[in-house]
Amino acid sequence: MLKKYQKLSESVNVRSALRAKSIIRRYLKPTNLTHYSELSRLMDAEIFVKHENHNPTSSFKIRGAINLFGSIDPEDATSGVLVATRGNHGLAMAWAAQWFNLPCTVVVPESNSEEINHCIEGFGAELIIHGHDFYDAQLFCDELSESAGYYYVEQGNEVSILNGIGTMTLEIMEDLPDVDVIISPIGGGALCASIIKVARGINPEIEIIGVQAETAASFYHSWQKGKWVVLDNADTIADGLAARSVFQLPYVIMKDQINDVVLLREDEILSGVNMSIESTHNLAECAGAASLVAAMKIKDRLKGKRVALIMSGGNIERKHLVQAIQ
Amino acid sequence: MLKKYQKLSESVNVRSALRAKSIIRRYLKPTNLTHYSELSRLMDAEIFVKHENHNPTSSFKIRGAINLFGSIDPEDATSGVLVATRGNHGLAMAWAAQWFNLPCTVVVPESNSEEINHCIEGFGAELIIHGHDFYDAQLFCDELSESAGYYYVEQGNEVSILNGIGTMTLEIMEDLPDVDVIISPIGGGALCASIIKVARGINPEIEIIGVQAETAASFYHSWQKGKWVVLDNADTIADGLAARSVFQLPYVIMKDQINDVVLLREDEILSGVNMSIESTHNLAECAGAASLVAAMKIKDRLKGKRVALIMSGGNIERKHLVQAIQ
Repeated sequence: MLKKYQKLSESVNVRSALRAKSIIRRYLKPTNLTHYSELSRLMDAEIFVKHENHNPTSSFKIRGAINLFGSIDPEDATSGVLVATRGNHGLAMAWAAQWFNLPCTVVVPESNSEEINHCIEGFGAELIIHGHDFYDAQLFCDELSESAGYYYVEQGNEVSILNGIGTMTLEIMEDLPDVDVIISPIGGGALCASIIKVARGINPEIEIIGVQAETAASFYHSWQKGKWVVLDNADTIADGLAARSVFQLPYVIMKDQINDVVLLREDEILSGVNMSIESTHNLAECAGAASLVAAMKIKDRLKGKRVALIMSGGNIERKHLVQAIQ
Repeated sequence: MLKKYQKLSESVNVRSALRAKSIIRRYLKPTNLTHYSELSRLMDAEIFVKHENHNPTSSFKIRGAINLFGSIDPEDATSGVLVATRGNHGLAMAWAAQWFNLPCTVVVPESNSEEINHCIEGFGAELIIHGHDFYDAQLFCDELSESAGYYYVEQGNEVSILNGIGTMTLEIMEDLPDVDVIISPIGGGALCASIIKVARGINPEIEIIGVQAETAASFYHSWQKGKWVVLDNADTIADGLAARSVFQLPYVIMKDQINDVVLLREDEILSGVNMSIESTHNLAECAGAASLVAAMKIKDRLKGKRVALIMSGGNIERKHLVQAIQ
């Protein structure tokens, strides 16, 4: 089964990301890659933060969503598109669906943030609440797509989504062509896999480091064992990291090409939100701040290097923000 | 004395803002003007937020600073430039000075945020702490510029700073050419004055509304009385609004052309920070969130209109953030 994804992975590349850019730039402005003196001083490196939290819907996911809608044949999606989400993917798909005048149905797990659910509905999407976690929501989408004829967007396994997200790395390479290291959170894996394909396609020497929660280290274990692992549960404060497995397409891209994976404890993840507020004056969600904490944790290895940290999103739940700043 | 500024005000215009744009775009990306469905629903209008908090140094001030450095004759600034600031102006000038390789000395009042002071020094500027408030810091700069030969940048009275800030309004007009209303905080007045000159230069029908703190309503009183007023004090939780007077150049621009000024109580200002987190997932400083609260306060007048709210900055002090979310 992974063989199919091995083949698909060849379609994620610099040229396709450039093609995605030609679509995305009609809807989105490039985000800032901001240099922070205080973080640079603390880590004895040149630290830049890629502010994907500044995007509409406050996350990088909007890039993939727009490229998907810009690439699908409307004939395939007459009943609309169907997505499973913990939050950001659903927000992005609902937002982009408005631009492309297509109906969008979003399945979220019961534990999902009410604020996010409210927002998804605000973008005019239909919301379905089902199952304990993201994995359950995904399985339900499989059922629905067979029974009701939706176009089911299995986010991390969609080539157009990975290439859409790849436009972020194109922007990094334009702003900082000599970047040495890129550090990115790994949830479903699409973000990190797109970085590997685009950054390495331009400069094979770039070091790419992933970040996961200790309690949701699905890719870390897959990578260590050399086989695709699905965890029994993936409960972490960081919604964006709470995946019981990475998608297969990112898995086959990351498994032989990632340089390292940093694991974070829950208290470390929370401290990142604080660090983001203090050092960058940005509201990051837990997964969005994970790269900052990971960089601090491995700062000895980053010494003197040009490092880009991906702040993947800003959709933090109020209770986590309160916890973080207290 | 105001006559001099009346004359100067003619140099703040669309053409000069376009000239500023040709300099600024080498250093800055345009910021997002993001549409928010939830805010739009609450106010029964089309609500867009101009995210100046996304700029490097987290405020709109960077636009003015870059245009000033790009416009001054280096011969005039051999001992470097001197600025008085409550925060954002100093951060912006120190950041821009690095790019232009000019020394920068920043005078802040004693009450200034330590975080901001630390950041200004982080950008390599010399920091001088002097006086009770911004007004005192300004007077000290007058002394220093005479005795030590600095180029004293009297921010709001510098034509190049107003035209630099004017690039923000050019971006708004590109993204939303049919904007009906623009709402902006008034501290020293440069931001709001630049909006008046650029927006009205493109469409004379645009309504422009300023926002001040009740306890620092210097422009409001000037406007009501028809003469330039300096308050005895201007203590407000919103650093960006805490000016005992507006500058003379913005005053002469705003006095006959502003449509209205909304005054906010301290508790209302604080609620704006909360509103920004809830509705936009952005960290706004108190002045940065003031337009959101003001819009809610006058929402009956905004009904059905296309409204741009300026989120001027994101440099909130930790203690104010804690107060706001509790």
